Amino acid sequence: MSAEIGEQPAALEATLAGLLPMRPRIAQLAGGRKRVLLVARGSSDNAAIYGRYLAELHAGISASLAAPSVATLYDARVDLSDTLAICVSQSGSTTEIVETLEWTRRCGAITIAITNVEDSPLASAADLALITRAGIERAVPATKSYTTQVAALAVAMDALATSAGKKGLLDKEFSQIGDHARAMLATPAETLDAMAGALAEVDEVLTSGRGIAFGTTLETALKLEETCLRPVRGLSYADLKHGPIAIVDHELLTVLVAGPSGPTVPGLTELAGTVREKHSMVLGIGGDEEFRSACDLAVPGPDASEILAPLTLIIPAQLIVERLAHKLGLNPDVPRGLRKVTQTD
Amino acid sequence: MSAEIGEQPAALEATLAGLLPMRPRIAQLAGGRKRVLLVARGSSDNAAIYGRYLAELHAGISASLAAPSVATLYDARVDLSDTLAICVSQSGSTTEIVETLEWTRRCGAITIAITNVEDSPLASAADLALITRAGIERAVPATKSYTTQVAALAVAMDALATSAGKKGLLDKEFSQIGDHARAMLATPAETLDAMAGALAEVDEVLTSGRGIAFGTTLETALKLEETCLRPVRGLSYADLKHGPIAIVDHELLTVLVAGPSGPTVPGLTELAGTVREKHSMVLGIGGDEEFRSACDLAVPGPDASEILAPLTLIIPAQLIVERLAHKLGLNPDVPRGLRKVTQTD
Repeated sequence: MSAEIGEQPAALEATLAGLLPMRPRIAQLAGGRKRVLLVARGSSDNAAIYGRYLAELHAGISASLAAPSVATLYDARVDLSDTLAICVSQSGSTTEIVETLEWTRRCGAITIAITNVEDSPLASAADLALITRAGIERAVPATKSYTTQVAALAVAMDALATSAGKKGLLDKEFSQIGDHARAMLATPAETLDAMAGALAEVDEVLTSGRGIAFGTTLETALKLEETCLRPVRGLSYADLKHGPIAIVDHELLTVLVAGPSGPTVPGLTELAGTVREKHSMVLGIGGDEEFRSACDLAVPGPDASEILAPLTLIIPAQLIVERLAHKLGLNPDVPRGLRKVTQTD
Repeated sequence: MSAEIGEQPAALEATLAGLLPMRPRIAQLAGGRKRVLLVARGSSDNAAIYGRYLAELHAGISASLAAPSVATLYDARVDLSDTLAICVSQSGSTTEIVETLEWTRRCGAITIAITNVEDSPLASAADLALITRAGIERAVPATKSYTTQVAALAVAMDALATSAGKKGLLDKEFSQIGDHARAMLATPAETLDAMAGALAEVDEVLTSGRGIAFGTTLETALKLEETCLRPVRGLSYADLKHGPIAIVDHELLTVLVAGPSGPTVPGLTELAGTVREKHSMVLGIGGDEEFRSACDLAVPGPDASEILAPLTLIIPAQLIVERLAHKLGLNPDVPRGLRKVTQTD
């Protein structure tokens, strides 16, 4: 896991180099489609949530996550004739995702696959395949496959934005992603160790974030949960206030994940204060100076735009989780009970 | 909370009597709209998830849950000219939901409110208001307001189904809902006590379900979490296999929620076996005889169709949660740190 975390600058650069030139083809294929349907599970689902926000905020196209059971278990007839379906799977071999892609096509959708395996069933089944260049990922917890999926979704949504007549992102912004990843890898080890130490001492952990960085918030929760074997909830701060805030106390540690800027940062800064008043320790990832001062311990995120920050904002969380696994005497590469390719129906 | 749980048969009957005659108006208003966007938070969000499945499975109309931050924090311009927005709030006073409704209209949507308060801001703002007849709800945890929202969504989706040329539900099916609720209230106290006792002895709880009963699964998790002050994850069994299965062991109790029939029951029965092999105790709600035999302790759900079961399937979970709160020395009516109307932005 540690080696693969370190390979992310190169993996992101290779992925973007391969996919950025495909934007005109993506735009042509998707031309006129009025909505985006994302299909994924696990870490890929958290990447897809980033894609969903970007579709709406950057491209102005309504987007949602599919409920695969509607396809695979119920085989419902749903009208998707106005829809672009984007199906995300590292291996491209999860039967559920391949079958759901085929179902979206039968319902009228145009289909795009995002996968790390060029000759996978998912890539073959799609109208267009966007191949991530993560290289072979051996550790069970997804790291470089996740960040490269996020990069592929950024490229796809940027293509949709320009085809919808919106201002696209600058190539210059994409060209800085490798450096952002390198900067994240250089996060001071001392703070990461202190954060992992704090996590090692609690049984209850909750993560919160919102908006464009919400997918990163959920991926942080999933990584903590599957690597370190404890239930971790990831919640929007609005959902947190609707009930789960009741469980926040000194026995629970809160991890807040924020983009570098944008309208969610003030709410997360306020939340840090509210949660600390309830005697829960607060770890912060990203945000601005004020946000980080409001947390007990914090590390900065990338010096990127709010829109592109999620390509690298997960890296500090990966580094913390990897350290935490070692502190708990666990093997971060092979969490108990998990396999690399998960078959679901 | 106990009294309000008991009022559900009458509340459901009053709500259905008021709303069933409105189906032609709903169909007329929604005519030709190609998708449904649901807007809600908290328990209402879990009701909305039922609505989302029903829109796709019963009416064949693509549906999704809104991300309110796209409206309230980012104020994005998204094309919703083909969309029917259904906004759900017990009080009808949560600013975030009212503002998101107004945003969907600015983006081109037709709007329906589902609320328990006839003269609320949400009801006034919508093109059409479907008023639930739960009466005043005093306990903070939503019970009768939740089940009546689920009933209102069943009526709305049935109207969309017939307007899309699909076979609607029979009035006879709706007329049995009160009796189903009464049957659920008569669940043997002994089994409910044993289930609450098992929950009182563990720190980690996970709920799982899928498809039409997935909203009930999430509402079970939220009720356990906000009433009994412990983090509870609600997961589709497919998502559970993608990572979180790693945390299932003897320290964690699993609650499985199943409809009375349908394609998700075999998978949940299999999951009960898998989870028990990992030495996690399994409590079952609903399902068929085979499902319940696969669990350590189980209670039946309503003798209803899969589609209408979620109007009453939550009741055994409410009864368990209320007993559990007492066992833990907590007040089920007023969980620590929660208010009845939650204001989020």
